[in-house]
Amino acid sequence: MSDVQADNITMSGGGLYSLATIGAKHVIDYTLPRVIDALDAVRSSSAAAGPSAYWNFSDMGCADGGTSLDLWRKVAAHIRAQSTADIQIVYADQARNDFNALVQILHGLTDFDTYLNEIDDLRILQSGASFYTSVLPADSLHLGFSATAMHWLSAKPCNISDHVHMVGASGAELEEFSKQAQQDWATILLHRARELKTGGKLVFANFCRDEQGHYLGATDGMNMFDTFNSIWQRFVDDGVITSEEYSSMTLPQYYNTVEEFASPFENQNSEVAKAGLRLDSIETHSVRCPFAEDFEKHGDAKKFARDYIPTIRTWNESIFHAGLSAKRDAQERREIIENYYATYQNMVEENPTGHAMDYVHAYMTIGKA
Amino acid sequence: MSDVQADNITMSGGGLYSLATIGAKHVIDYTLPRVIDALDAVRSSSAAAGPSAYWNFSDMGCADGGTSLDLWRKVAAHIRAQSTADIQIVYADQARNDFNALVQILHGLTDFDTYLNEIDDLRILQSGASFYTSVLPADSLHLGFSATAMHWLSAKPCNISDHVHMVGASGAELEEFSKQAQQDWATILLHRARELKTGGKLVFANFCRDEQGHYLGATDGMNMFDTFNSIWQRFVDDGVITSEEYSSMTLPQYYNTVEEFASPFENQNSEVAKAGLRLDSIETHSVRCPFAEDFEKHGDAKKFARDYIPTIRTWNESIFHAGLSAKRDAQERREIIENYYATYQNMVEENPTGHAMDYVHAYMTIGKA
Repeated sequence: MSDVQADNITMSGGGLYSLATIGAKHVIDYTLPRVIDALDAVRSSSAAAGPSAYWNFSDMGCADGGTSLDLWRKVAAHIRAQSTADIQIVYADQARNDFNALVQILHGLTDFDTYLNEIDDLRILQSGASFYTSVLPADSLHLGFSATAMHWLSAKPCNISDHVHMVGASGAELEEFSKQAQQDWATILLHRARELKTGGKLVFANFCRDEQGHYLGATDGMNMFDTFNSIWQRFVDDGVITSEEYSSMTLPQYYNTVEEFASPFENQNSEVAKAGLRLDSIETHSVRCPFAEDFEKHGDAKKFARDYIPTIRTWNESIFHAGLSAKRDAQERREIIENYYATYQNMVEENPTGHAMDYVHAYMTIGKA
Repeated sequence: MSDVQADNITMSGGGLYSLATIGAKHVIDYTLPRVIDALDAVRSSSAAAGPSAYWNFSDMGCADGGTSLDLWRKVAAHIRAQSTADIQIVYADQARNDFNALVQILHGLTDFDTYLNEIDDLRILQSGASFYTSVLPADSLHLGFSATAMHWLSAKPCNISDHVHMVGASGAELEEFSKQAQQDWATILLHRARELKTGGKLVFANFCRDEQGHYLGATDGMNMFDTFNSIWQRFVDDGVITSEEYSSMTLPQYYNTVEEFASPFENQNSEVAKAGLRLDSIETHSVRCPFAEDFEKHGDAKKFARDYIPTIRTWNESIFHAGLSAKRDAQERREIIENYYATYQNMVEENPTGHAMDYVHAYMTIGKA
């Protein structure tokens, strides 16, 4: 694939992703009852519980695996309380992910509290396959999970001329993004339909634009993406970056609405419906920005700014960095990026009110009939 | 486990292992007819070809995966020519392995020529589980492969007082190593017996002491391990390292004889035999040191020395480094190690004749009845 995802985007490595993204962990913790319900449904399906001798689960877009440790600990314990069959959990992310951090976290070689040795007959595997391809063999998966990952498009359809993100796009550019997102969502689902067993389930927590028009970092306070954009705009005005560079700094993301997520399931003749997938349920829910929440308690604007910026850097730094011209040397690019986040941090420190990266997700369960 | 393997030993990362160990690739290439025969036997076994919908293979102790690319390319093509079922290959190595290099090599993000996109419906996974534990769920594996890996013991039973390797040990120390090796070989086999399907096969190429008493680096010329030892002995004499450090520099390896490899299969009441494993065939074979072979052609001692030392460093540097006292600072330890390999390189350059790391392996096929 013409793969922006595989080529340019990397989450922070070395376990930093999980350390800086406690909010992403809260999102995953919120999925627990949904995942347990889905598991119980899989267990009661004779088709899914059929010929396979072991339970097979996947965690797609897992990054360093730290944010979902508690979820899998509880899922594995839930299964083990009722079944002696082996359990296999496959952690998947794109091939440029930091797999050394992932494996070391899972195998207890770091300070993260792994569950690997708490459950008998549990095997952990990793895959460097993106969720835009098949991760597992056909008819092998009981339950596939993914949180805060599928908003990354398989490719950037175009640059956005007057913003850094599709939430600020309009007209033909927004159309291009919508079309790409629609195709990508179908691609993701069709690969999952192939690898799922009949009676198997998918549980996804995906970024969305909710019924009130809220989305990541844009709930009741300021709009985080407008802040991203305004600083880069100022950098153009001040001659720090060129307008071409500004334009390249388009995040290859899309936040679907509930309707957009549901769309492929509604037409019985769609490829997704024909592949046997059904949307069991979908709801939207916001998880508060943990740093803004902390700030309400401690009131220290300097500390808030210092805590808040790294959580943003983990996921957008590599994109902004890649937007800078290759004609600049590495040192110069590094300085512009540092300048960018320092500007942002000062802005938060001087006027903290309204800054927050609340997580707005659509939580859904999908079954294979 | 009290795990020397997991704690101290690492092969060179970043793809360097495969670049520096072309000889290990020759060993793997030599296994091809044996692997194809084993596969054909698995395919003709109705038990192994039974309920599973896909082929499941493992490559244990894979390091960066570069040396076995051609083997798996041919195996996958062989299967695909006769079966449309999905193929899953699980690459396993200890949790401190360089999985980033492994995944990037397999997914075609390096200069290595991967086979991933040549074969339809092929899935590649990785595991950070050592072969001293279960890598895969019970009854899930069709064919397990391992080359040049199982000589690493699960733990160092004792230091060897007058040598760096068990090939130079004697008396009670040799006894300790033999006992450890016997236990470890049984442990490896019992974990494989659990994960293999009935009718499944294992193909291993393991370092050995052959019928002529030959072993790695000790065939017709000098004895490589005696050279390792003599330089460290000289470093003790010259006050560069202490005698405690010399003693700690004991490689946690064991090279079994054919009789030792065959032993667990011969007693029908052994755990291994009771688990259903049978030794189908075993043969020893030497693969010439590619650098010594090249030297015969080019005759340039300086080039030979420069090519030869890195292949040794890939596998023993981390052990020797760990033998140095933690009281020395990192810089000092680094200098001693550099001095060691420089001394070795000078020795080869000045008198190249007889230096060679020929690979002496026992090649075996094991079946699960």
